[in-house]
Amino acid sequence: MKLYYLLLLMCFPSLASAEENLATINVDTVWVATAAALVFLMQAGFALLESGCTRSKNAVNVVMKNYMDVCLGTLIFWCVGYGIMFGSNPTGLFGTDQFFLVSSDPWDYTVVLFQMLFAATAATIASGAMAERTRFHGYLIGAVLIIGLIYPVVGSWIWNAEGWLAKQGFIDFAGSTVVHSTGAWVALAGIIIVGARTGRFDADGKPREIPGHNLNLVALGGFILWFGWFGFNGGSTLAADANIGLINLNTQLAAGAGAVGAMLMSRFMGQALLLTVIVNGSLAGLVAITAGCATMTPPFAIITGLIGGAIATSGAKLLLTLRLDDVVGAIPVHGFAGAWGTIAAGMFLDGDLFNKDVIFVQIVGVIICFIWAFLMTMLVYKLVSNFFGLRADTIHEQRGLDVTEHAEIGYPEFGNANPYDQSTLNAIKQ
Amino acid sequence: MKLYYLLLLMCFPSLASAEENLATINVDTVWVATAAALVFLMQAGFALLESGCTRSKNAVNVVMKNYMDVCLGTLIFWCVGYGIMFGSNPTGLFGTDQFFLVSSDPWDYTVVLFQMLFAATAATIASGAMAERTRFHGYLIGAVLIIGLIYPVVGSWIWNAEGWLAKQGFIDFAGSTVVHSTGAWVALAGIIIVGARTGRFDADGKPREIPGHNLNLVALGGFILWFGWFGFNGGSTLAADANIGLINLNTQLAAGAGAVGAMLMSRFMGQALLLTVIVNGSLAGLVAITAGCATMTPPFAIITGLIGGAIATSGAKLLLTLRLDDVVGAIPVHGFAGAWGTIAAGMFLDGDLFNKDVIFVQIVGVIICFIWAFLMTMLVYKLVSNFFGLRADTIHEQRGLDVTEHAEIGYPEFGNANPYDQSTLNAIKQ
Amino acid sequence: MKLYYLLLLMCFPSLASAEENLATINVDTVWVATAAALVFLMQAGFALLESGCTRSKNAVNVVMKNYMDVCLGTLIFWCVGYGIMFGSNPTGLFGTDQFFLVSSDPWDYTVVLFQMLFAATAATIASGAMAERTRFHGYLIGAVLIIGLIYPVVGSWIWNAEGWLAKQGFIDFAGSTVVHSTGAWVALAGIIIVGARTGRFDADGKPREIPGHNLNLVALGGFILWFGWFGFNGGSTLAADANIGLINLNTQLAAGAGAVGAMLMSRFMGQALLLTVIVNGSLAGLVAITAGCATMTPPFAIITGLIGGAIATSGAKLLLTLRLDDVVGAIPVHGFAGAWGTIAAGMFLDGDLFNKDVIFVQIVGVIICFIWAFLMTMLVYKLVSNFFGLRADTIHEQRGLDVTEHAEIGYPEFGNANPYDQSTLNAIKQ
Repeated sequence: MKLYYLLLLMCFPSLASAEENLATINVDTVWVATAAALVFLMQAGFALLESGCTRSKNAVNVVMKNYMDVCLGTLIFWCVGYGIMFGSNPTGLFGTDQFFLVSSDPWDYTVVLFQMLFAATAATIASGAMAERTRFHGYLIGAVLIIGLIYPVVGSWIWNAEGWLAKQGFIDFAGSTVVHSTGAWVALAGIIIVGARTGRFDADGKPREIPGHNLNLVALGGFILWFGWFGFNGGSTLAADANIGLINLNTQLAAGAGAVGAMLMSRFMGQALLLTVIVNGSLAGLVAITAGCATMTPPFAIITGLIGGAIATSGAKLLLTLRLDDVVGAIPVHGFAGAWGTIAAGMFLDGDLFNKDVIFVQIVGVIICFIWAFLMTMLVYKLVSNFFGLRADTIHEQRGLDVTEHAEIGYPEFGNANPYDQSTLNAIKQ
Repeated sequence: MKLYYLLLLMCFPSLASAEENLATINVDTVWVATAAALVFLMQAGFALLESGCTRSKNAVNVVMKNYMDVCLGTLIFWCVGYGIMFGSNPTGLFGTDQFFLVSSDPWDYTVVLFQMLFAATAATIASGAMAERTRFHGYLIGAVLIIGLIYPVVGSWIWNAEGWLAKQGFIDFAGSTVVHSTGAWVALAGIIIVGARTGRFDADGKPREIPGHNLNLVALGGFILWFGWFGFNGGSTLAADANIGLINLNTQLAAGAGAVGAMLMSRFMGQALLLTVIVNGSLAGLVAITAGCATMTPPFAIITGLIGGAIATSGAKLLLTLRLDDVVGAIPVHGFAGAWGTIAAGMFLDGDLFNKDVIFVQIVGVIICFIWAFLMTMLVYKLVSNFFGLRADTIHEQRGLDVTEHAEIGYPEFGNANPYDQSTLNAIKQ
Repeated sequence: MKLYYLLLLMCFPSLASAEENLATINVDTVWVATAAALVFLMQAGFALLESGCTRSKNAVNVVMKNYMDVCLGTLIFWCVGYGIMFGSNPTGLFGTDQFFLVSSDPWDYTVVLFQMLFAATAATIASGAMAERTRFHGYLIGAVLIIGLIYPVVGSWIWNAEGWLAKQGFIDFAGSTVVHSTGAWVALAGIIIVGARTGRFDADGKPREIPGHNLNLVALGGFILWFGWFGFNGGSTLAADANIGLINLNTQLAAGAGAVGAMLMSRFMGQALLLTVIVNGSLAGLVAITAGCATMTPPFAIITGLIGGAIATSGAKLLLTLRLDDVVGAIPVHGFAGAWGTIAAGMFLDGDLFNKDVIFVQIVGVIICFIWAFLMTMLVYKLVSNFFGLRADTIHEQRGLDVTEHAEIGYPEFGNANPYDQSTLNAIKQ
């Protein structure tokens, strides 16, 4: 209809274009609002996956952290995060307006909502890695700074049209680096500052397994995250667009391939095929395809996912040899596979395969985002640790954070749960 | 394109407009069908939240009530509820046609589906409040009357264009009063008729905690309800509309603020920060914003949610001082926060802030809906109680309703679950 | 706008129609991508339902099967399944191209994604029926052959426009036969080859109850499946279409009626009202309406669902008298109710009720699909059983497949779970 519009617009420009735009905005709003809802549900996926991977005495604590992440993150991101990320960005380093956004353009609200839920995702990645020994209030202070500052600055470099990395042509369609790796580097700083759980490594530094209390929750968490990813990747078009089909097909293929990659690597390393490995493999495939899902063909999506799953599986072992205690495998899944996926998005760019210049920009971006997110979070958690307290007392860790931080028990009728009544719980907490 | 159509319609009116309408209907249908699916899933959210808040010996019973609510509610609402709510309404007091709807306009079916799931939501609110001591069949008879009569009459006043409150300009965009408060007043009547659980209050009337058996389910239920709310509020446009962005952003902000409000109130009252309080706080924020989500700006949405969360938290304490036993906090969350939200929708009306006339209509509507729903349900449950039986026998309550009403056990391998085999279960049931 | 386009297309055909098609494709893509996400989540529904119906010692194993079904199925279906199902089909018996699909038309990718998730659904139905005694690797080999061959051949007959059953006018809108019955006949062959669980029938062939370990998961699985069905049925329009309203209203009504049908049949057979029966009843209603949801009016949808629920409930008993051990009731729900629903789609065809010719084609299709799927799967599982092993050793079955196949325990802190540490688990596995 372009030609028709050209003719019509000569005569009656305003009426015609306004009406047409309105209809397009409506459809775009429908899609992005749907996608935003799916991304929201990823919080439940994280909460279940993380809770299932921890011991029942910390189930409430880790779920509470996820729940509060999205509650506080929502408010903080509307107040300051969105402005830093998407406000006018003259230096290319951070945005400078659109704080506390009230707008006359309804589309702005749709975008704020969608981006807000991405911010919450980035923040909540750390909660799993740091589970079972991190205090609730210290954790929350960190999360607020991540959502309000560390994450949106990365976003302002890559997703703000004026960002310095965006201007270099850095490819990160839905956030392998912006969201996932950033979240993982935050988590890495977190587990370094907070230290390993008591008993995770023996005196010789050999790791001891601490099995999660509910593997059904892990699988359900994995399914829900995968489900949400169709909004995460598909919604990053920020428009009703025929390309959503390719994006979400690539997403699906990479997830399946990630699980297969994890399975193969697990066999190669002579390990039993664990449910947690399979679930993390599929998530690593999803993380890896997130950067390039809109710009590669399905065969490359499969390769990207396959390698992502293998990297996450071997990366988990690498962390253990470094005596780093990542309870849920967040760093290999979101960090290592995210870095790989960001580079893969450059390597497998449709129509411009294996272009060295493109790949170089991708690698530079990955490294600089690592430096920023890792060092800033080291600083933040160090300050939190010194001034508010981040690591729980050993006695609290042994009793479980549910009792000592929340005066609640996840499963008061089952298994190892402590048979305290509420007044005892309140007494312990104080 | 208005002008073009004006010209074209002069020549060939029917063809042109039919085609254009068809396209709009398609997009509207996509959105409302998506939203309806999200609202459906809220039933799962209620089921998990309620089951998690009860003891494991009643887990099956409360889930069964939720499951049957939506099954029976679906049929009853199609048969009679929809007609009472949306049929021609000459008196303004109830609809009089469109029963057993079969229509030639496909849009009607989309609307029936969406409204049907709202009705199921209203009905299921009571199941949590009345859990652990209410008989299955008595409960279901009540639910049928609520979905078929009590709820649709309120709807016919407010959401039927000919309704008497609608004509006064009563604002309740997605149902803070129509759905949530109505459901809560039903629950209030229910817990008054059925009485508190055995052991909930000691001889002096002091409450004793009865901890829920699975807090992970409570959190998952909260996440799923929040997820569904994007369809509940966003879908209430009944159209693909750019305003969905504002509506769902307000929804998200109010939910986050509700949790913060609950946290602050909890601290103010000197209580430990419980997961159930946080989850209920976010739900209270969601309930509160439901009436005004389409007609206030984000800052007011935050205020509405914040106060909603605080009200729900303090309201839960109020009920206990009145020796009322609301197992999940349904009445403070859906009732008190719903009433507040309905008034807030009047106070914070964009472009007409703090208009006394508007606020007056809101208050009158809240009060009259309370009187109708509360008194009618008192009557219904009183009749059910006398003629069919509503309160479970004390021996059944002690054994748990799962065994005595359903001959099933939620977790036969775990914890306090009774080690009965199926024949013993059948024997107990009879 | 047809007329306008006729005029315009005479002058500038390509520009105008391309632009118009683009917009429609965008909206169609939004809907089908949304629906695909919902269908994906059905995998979680199956996993939870099946895990909840089994003993905790097999919880991981059954969930792993579901998880790997969708991972492997995704890859296999893209490689070969889609081509067999939707490639050019000169014989009407199977497709012959579109393998490893890379396309220049973005719509193709949307369709592949949607169909891929249907294939995974068909495959995963068997996992529940065969739970608790089927080896992991043998099961997966079978699943690959089902997704890559058995299922897509049925699809090529019915959903490929050149298919021989499609040309007879066979009605199966969203797959009562293509997906659900096919999956169930696969399951039937599976449970015949693999045999009943140890202890399921006593020496006289009388069944002994083996209660599922977590009924909350069963209910949540049911809710999630129901939720996903709005994408399964609604998305089968493969277009943004006003008829989605009728389709999903029928879906909802049939689900509710299915639960009521199951309740009535349960009472008629003198059984206690079990949660599993209610959930399976609603699922049977959903399966039954799947074939005819787009082509019957709501009253007939209710009848279809009601009878579907009753059939599934009585069918479960029938299987037991035949000493067939279907752990979750997959065969009565997906097979018997699916066959009924396919016939009902013919009987209740709007505008052509009870047309004998139509009904005859439906019955023929049901029978031939049964013969193909059942016999082929007998062959496949027989070969798997002989060459790779399908039935777990009795000692493994007693210990639980989680320990012996995966070296993991679902709930290591609760109930009957074995208190093995990871090295013991690894030792047992080897």
